[in-house]
Amino acid sequence: MVEDQTSLASLLGQFAALKGRKVLVHGGGRLATAMAANLGIESRMVGGRRITDAPMLEVVTMVYGGLVNKNIVAGLQAKGVKAIGLTGADGDVIRSHKRPLKRVKMDDGTEQMVDFGFVGDVDRVDAQLLIQLIEGDTVPVIAPLTHDGEGHILNTNADTIAASVACALAEHYDVTLTFCFEKRGVLRNADDENSVIPSINEAQAHSLIDEGIIAGGMIPKIENAFEAIHKGVRKVIITHSENIDGSRGTTIKR
Amino acid sequence: MVEDQTSLASLLGQFAALKGRKVLVHGGGRLATAMAANLGIESRMVGGRRITDAPMLEVVTMVYGGLVNKNIVAGLQAKGVKAIGLTGADGDVIRSHKRPLKRVKMDDGTEQMVDFGFVGDVDRVDAQLLIQLIEGDTVPVIAPLTHDGEGHILNTNADTIAASVACALAEHYDVTLTFCFEKRGVLRNADDENSVIPSINEAQAHSLIDEGIIAGGMIPKIENAFEAIHKGVRKVIITHSENIDGSRGTTIKR
Repeated sequence: MVEDQTSLASLLGQFAALKGRKVLVHGGGRLATAMAANLGIESRMVGGRRITDAPMLEVVTMVYGGLVNKNIVAGLQAKGVKAIGLTGADGDVIRSHKRPLKRVKMDDGTEQMVDFGFVGDVDRVDAQLLIQLIEGDTVPVIAPLTHDGEGHILNTNADTIAASVACALAEHYDVTLTFCFEKRGVLRNADDENSVIPSINEAQAHSLIDEGIIAGGMIPKIENAFEAIHKGVRKVIITHSENIDGSRGTTIKR
Repeated sequence: MVEDQTSLASLLGQFAALKGRKVLVHGGGRLATAMAANLGIESRMVGGRRITDAPMLEVVTMVYGGLVNKNIVAGLQAKGVKAIGLTGADGDVIRSHKRPLKRVKMDDGTEQMVDFGFVGDVDRVDAQLLIQLIEGDTVPVIAPLTHDGEGHILNTNADTIAASVACALAEHYDVTLTFCFEKRGVLRNADDENSVIPSINEAQAHSLIDEGIIAGGMIPKIENAFEAIHKGVRKVIITHSENIDGSRGTTIKR
């Protein structure tokens, strides 16, 4: 909820209060869509993912790497957190490759080959700089941008970055990965915020997907969550951004 | 000349080839002006300095901190330089305060009190993180943005940032500060690129300002240069951005 000043302030306050070593990964899709519209650039989404042509890449580089990242960093500094903003290009922290054409199930049920444009699929996270910063009491604030090592910035899903960073850090730390979004967790009934499922293991997740209870944008989140668990992340929580300490929400279990 | 893809690539190639520890400070004013125009925001300049109201602050935060900074970082990574992009907010590296109303000599010779808006005058540079990065073979790439420690990003002149960073590093290193711009150096005759003055001391600078040979945007550059020399920077060079190794241009001497 980085787009709204009031909820951003509250989120940063909560984040500042979290004990222990921490990393923040943010998005900014709605701001990017609004900025693109102001520039006369149309946002095209397929399966909840943004098509990133050259003008849109400029927009997301500006909005995620500049506007959102720097306002979060300055906001955290004001709360006494020594934050440092990074994209995957900075310090070569996250290397990716441009996503090849991908078969995607469209809303009408048909399948199509989709060119997502300048979108990066993560190849590797170099945890070394992150650890160096973290051990120096600095908090990395990571924008959803990566690079291909050949001079190109690539737009990369924030949940994927969060999961990849969590996995890389899990080799060195006990990591809890918290996905924050606009719902209170994985809901049994999408219209009822009180129907949060407290915990899910992988077998249950598959059943819930088959039943259509886990659907849409929640599917990649769940997939990222289980991948993280398999790669050594201790705990994954899916919760509302008003609850980033993870005390409520859905816990993903092995 | 970060606005032009071809000269940017050449500049980054030259910068990558520079031996020794290094820091890059960039601008991006022309891109900011162009982006603002695309958003229907008018750029207002007084004495060569940008008036930064709230919408313009968003533009420069996006363009300097995002678009320009991240493209430079990705470009340097492609040349094997482990670059990391920073604004003054990142790691609390450069703290500033919002410039108070300032008496400015206008083009018509009159003086006016000018509110530059969200523009920062530098209070201090914390060299510690910069040194830590530099000693880890990482190259800081600094955007012309600072913060006030209270959650606000402030637009800050790139030459001032370069001079402030050079001074802070001069306590630890032998520092050469190179100002790159669109002329070959300080010119005796503004219309003749072959009239570069090879070196200037402070007394000569004052005479050249009195004679009107040093004028306009060159005056703050020269002032920054002498301030840096007085604060321990070993050498300051003013030169064309095609010549960032500082082998030609104007050398500023004590």
